[in-house]
Amino acid sequence: MKLQPNLLLLTAAVLVFGDVDAGNVLVWPTEGSHWINLRPLLETLFDRGHNVTVLGPSATLFMDLRDPAHYSILHFNMSISKKDVQDFIEEFLEFAMHEMHHMNVVQKHITFYKLFSKKQDFFLTYCDGVLKSPSVMAKLRQQKFDVFLVDPFYPCGELLAEVLAVPFVMTQRFSYAHTVERWCGQTPAPPSYVPGDVVAVSQWKTYDTYFTDYLGRPTSYCELMGKADIWLIRTYWDFEYPRPLLPNFIYVGGLHCRPAKPLPQDLEEFVQSSGDDGIVVFSLGSFIRNLTKERSNVIASAFGQIPQKVFWKYLGEKPDNLAPNTRIYDWIPQNDLLGHPKTRAFVTHGGTNGVYEAIYHGVPMVGIPIFADQTDNMVHMKAKGAAVFLNFNSLQAQDLVDALKTVINDPSYKESVMRLSRIHHDRPVKPLDEAVFWIEYVMRNKGAGHLRVASHSLNWYQYHSLDVLVFLISILALVFYIIIRTCSFLIRRCCRTPKHKSKRE
Amino acid sequence: MKLQPNLLLLTAAVLVFGDVDAGNVLVWPTEGSHWINLRPLLETLFDRGHNVTVLGPSATLFMDLRDPAHYSILHFNMSISKKDVQDFIEEFLEFAMHEMHHMNVVQKHITFYKLFSKKQDFFLTYCDGVLKSPSVMAKLRQQKFDVFLVDPFYPCGELLAEVLAVPFVMTQRFSYAHTVERWCGQTPAPPSYVPGDVVAVSQWKTYDTYFTDYLGRPTSYCELMGKADIWLIRTYWDFEYPRPLLPNFIYVGGLHCRPAKPLPQDLEEFVQSSGDDGIVVFSLGSFIRNLTKERSNVIASAFGQIPQKVFWKYLGEKPDNLAPNTRIYDWIPQNDLLGHPKTRAFVTHGGTNGVYEAIYHGVPMVGIPIFADQTDNMVHMKAKGAAVFLNFNSLQAQDLVDALKTVINDPSYKESVMRLSRIHHDRPVKPLDEAVFWIEYVMRNKGAGHLRVASHSLNWYQYHSLDVLVFLISILALVFYIIIRTCSFLIRRCCRTPKHKSKRE
Repeated sequence: MKLQPNLLLLTAAVLVFGDVDAGNVLVWPTEGSHWINLRPLLETLFDRGHNVTVLGPSATLFMDLRDPAHYSILHFNMSISKKDVQDFIEEFLEFAMHEMHHMNVVQKHITFYKLFSKKQDFFLTYCDGVLKSPSVMAKLRQQKFDVFLVDPFYPCGELLAEVLAVPFVMTQRFSYAHTVERWCGQTPAPPSYVPGDVVAVSQWKTYDTYFTDYLGRPTSYCELMGKADIWLIRTYWDFEYPRPLLPNFIYVGGLHCRPAKPLPQDLEEFVQSSGDDGIVVFSLGSFIRNLTKERSNVIASAFGQIPQKVFWKYLGEKPDNLAPNTRIYDWIPQNDLLGHPKTRAFVTHGGTNGVYEAIYHGVPMVGIPIFADQTDNMVHMKAKGAAVFLNFNSLQAQDLVDALKTVINDPSYKESVMRLSRIHHDRPVKPLDEAVFWIEYVMRNKGAGHLRVASHSLNWYQYHSLDVLVFLISILALVFYIIIRTCSFLIRRCCRTPKHKSKRE
Repeated sequence: MKLQPNLLLLTAAVLVFGDVDAGNVLVWPTEGSHWINLRPLLETLFDRGHNVTVLGPSATLFMDLRDPAHYSILHFNMSISKKDVQDFIEEFLEFAMHEMHHMNVVQKHITFYKLFSKKQDFFLTYCDGVLKSPSVMAKLRQQKFDVFLVDPFYPCGELLAEVLAVPFVMTQRFSYAHTVERWCGQTPAPPSYVPGDVVAVSQWKTYDTYFTDYLGRPTSYCELMGKADIWLIRTYWDFEYPRPLLPNFIYVGGLHCRPAKPLPQDLEEFVQSSGDDGIVVFSLGSFIRNLTKERSNVIASAFGQIPQKVFWKYLGEKPDNLAPNTRIYDWIPQNDLLGHPKTRAFVTHGGTNGVYEAIYHGVPMVGIPIFADQTDNMVHMKAKGAAVFLNFNSLQAQDLVDALKTVINDPSYKESVMRLSRIHHDRPVKPLDEAVFWIEYVMRNKGAGHLRVASHSLNWYQYHSLDVLVFLISILALVFYIIIRTCSFLIRRCCRTPKHKSKRE
């Protein structure tokens, strides 16, 4: 028996949830791959007739704010420049890609903490730019928004939602150690089988202060984050190990993926020239534009030793030893290349978007993770048998050659990633449609309060029933006390009666 | 702004998940309302081309086993007769409807426990009928089933799944106190906001023994229940308060509901004769066929005092004082009546099927719960403002009149149930389609192992990380011990040196 879902019908079927009247969608700004992931969602909302307004920061590097077709921009000014942002990213990448690997554990943590504090100050300029600008706030108040899409990459979306009293939908891949989902979102996560990282709540204090000052009443980052009506999580059970979730957590990983379109002619010709060996696609994502000469030479040398043709997306200086089988491009149609039948492997930094494109199209991976969730992503893919991964800083050409030969020639990698691909595609509603459904749900119903667990209104000791426990123990203690006192009284009465009697007599 | 999902499109859209090749579906027998709920699912599976085989017990009261159109029957013989089953139900109903209310709390529990034990022995005759019949087992082994649908109302479905090595889908409303879902299904349920009833695990021991004997290796009811690939739960967030769930728990409450069809002419005429006052529908479900004369007179007298026309589904003796506005029927098209625009209220025993039909069509309820989950159901509906409920045993005519006047004339009841109705209908996939999807999913993928949490392979102390805790505490204790010993050694060396010296000298 062979049962296969008819995916074309599935695709056609689900986008017709219903005609909805146009609504007003507000979008908190975000950056890099987060923005790349959010854009298809905004385009779909636009196509369904909604008015989408994106808050456009003056210092953005990645957001396309000039005459966008699918949304309007509400510009705001920031106290930092694009150059400041670029400099910070360079500084951070220098640390993550190189310096870190020559530091001892103490130096590493001190430098990370310094960068982290700088990042927070830098992030708060987004808050200031919107929330402390009377003109921007006046414009926001003037329009009546039905839903607010918040990627918590930059803070203060949740604060703005509170100020404007607009129901909001969180869209995120994860928070460090899932602390936001656990603590603010109230998702139970038994540590015995739901692994967590270090607890990263120290960063919240800065925001707690900012939020409390702004609202003029005691509040916290976590309290306002916890008011989200829906949490759109950018993974699914193809990627995650199963764990408890709550009714308002919707897993929409891979919503940006789509069937491959035909390649431009020059790319297709280069693909076809690979013959049976096929091609390898290599990208380190949107943030990393440069590599050191030494690192790029090592990588180029490795590519020269494999029979596949290699598509390398790279904006830095061309390596000296680039082999004829490797071509460097400023930009590649990554999704279309990964969906090409001749693609044998994807060499990736392990960003969530790329990993999901590889899962979607069923391409084994060689991961070279560098920062953020990239190592976590590659650990998942390795554990599921769909990838091997390497250390960017220490890898030698032979390591990369071996890794590529392994994922290309050992059929288990292709089988594993195809299994993930089947899980990814075999769901009742496509992730993009599910995300759109719940955003429109919040618009239609002015929130989704009936999906939020009651524990949001409990504090920590109530949540763990400690108040009930203390009450019960008190009752028990009281009962024991009364019993003991009664017994001892009775014993005194019974045993000592003669003495008392004699006394009284 | 008015946003409304287009429900017709939704309905049309979702039943086209895909063409699947025919699969073989095995179905564990069940009874009464459980069977009523299961049947539309089986019919849909049949319509989608699957071969559905239902295990047909010789002593069934409710299952339609004669020439069914949508499934074939694999008959099995039981050591009890239909009369035994009917007698047991009568005995149970006599207890639940009358005797119980004249007992003190101790008598109540003793009688309940006696009935419970009898029920278990009675249930095990189903197990014997299938699992200990060589001919039935041979037929089961001969056919290759792709999925096994198990309603745990009768035990041993999970045992048969284990023996036949067929992936299985659980379909249930709930287990007592949700213990099966919590303990066997591994769903976290913080007691601070997820209420539980008494813990009902004592019943499992009988099954543990039976299962262990049969398999010839130590096992338990809970272990085998926990192997379910998918749990189809017959509620949703219209009815439930939000709480943690697991990825393989799918909420499909109301899968049996459908738009109202036109009524037969005589019923429609009686409805129309109600004018603006509209109608009231009354049913006590599939199990209760008879009432005492006294109870039925009280109810009839109440109905005589309201301006609505009343449809009463009742198989017992006609009450003496039946008013002209009330008609008694052997059977009513309940779903179609509840969907009629003139329906003002539903007087119900509070069974899940009826409650969901009322939610689906948005009809306020007067509950007269009697046994099983009926009180729990009515507590939910009352808390959500969609119902009032009465005690069957003590209710007087005026109570029922007042209750009906309240839910009909106070608009808040209609508003509340319409809110639930909106929540019920406003979901990305209709419950019947979602149930079918996941059953076919299990068929296509030979299970859904990737949705089962890892805690299934942990025992209780591992689940609560007590092993890790003991290890860490041991390390801490060891470190403290070493520090203290070292210190005390050093102190002895430093402080007492002169004495030792002098001694040695």
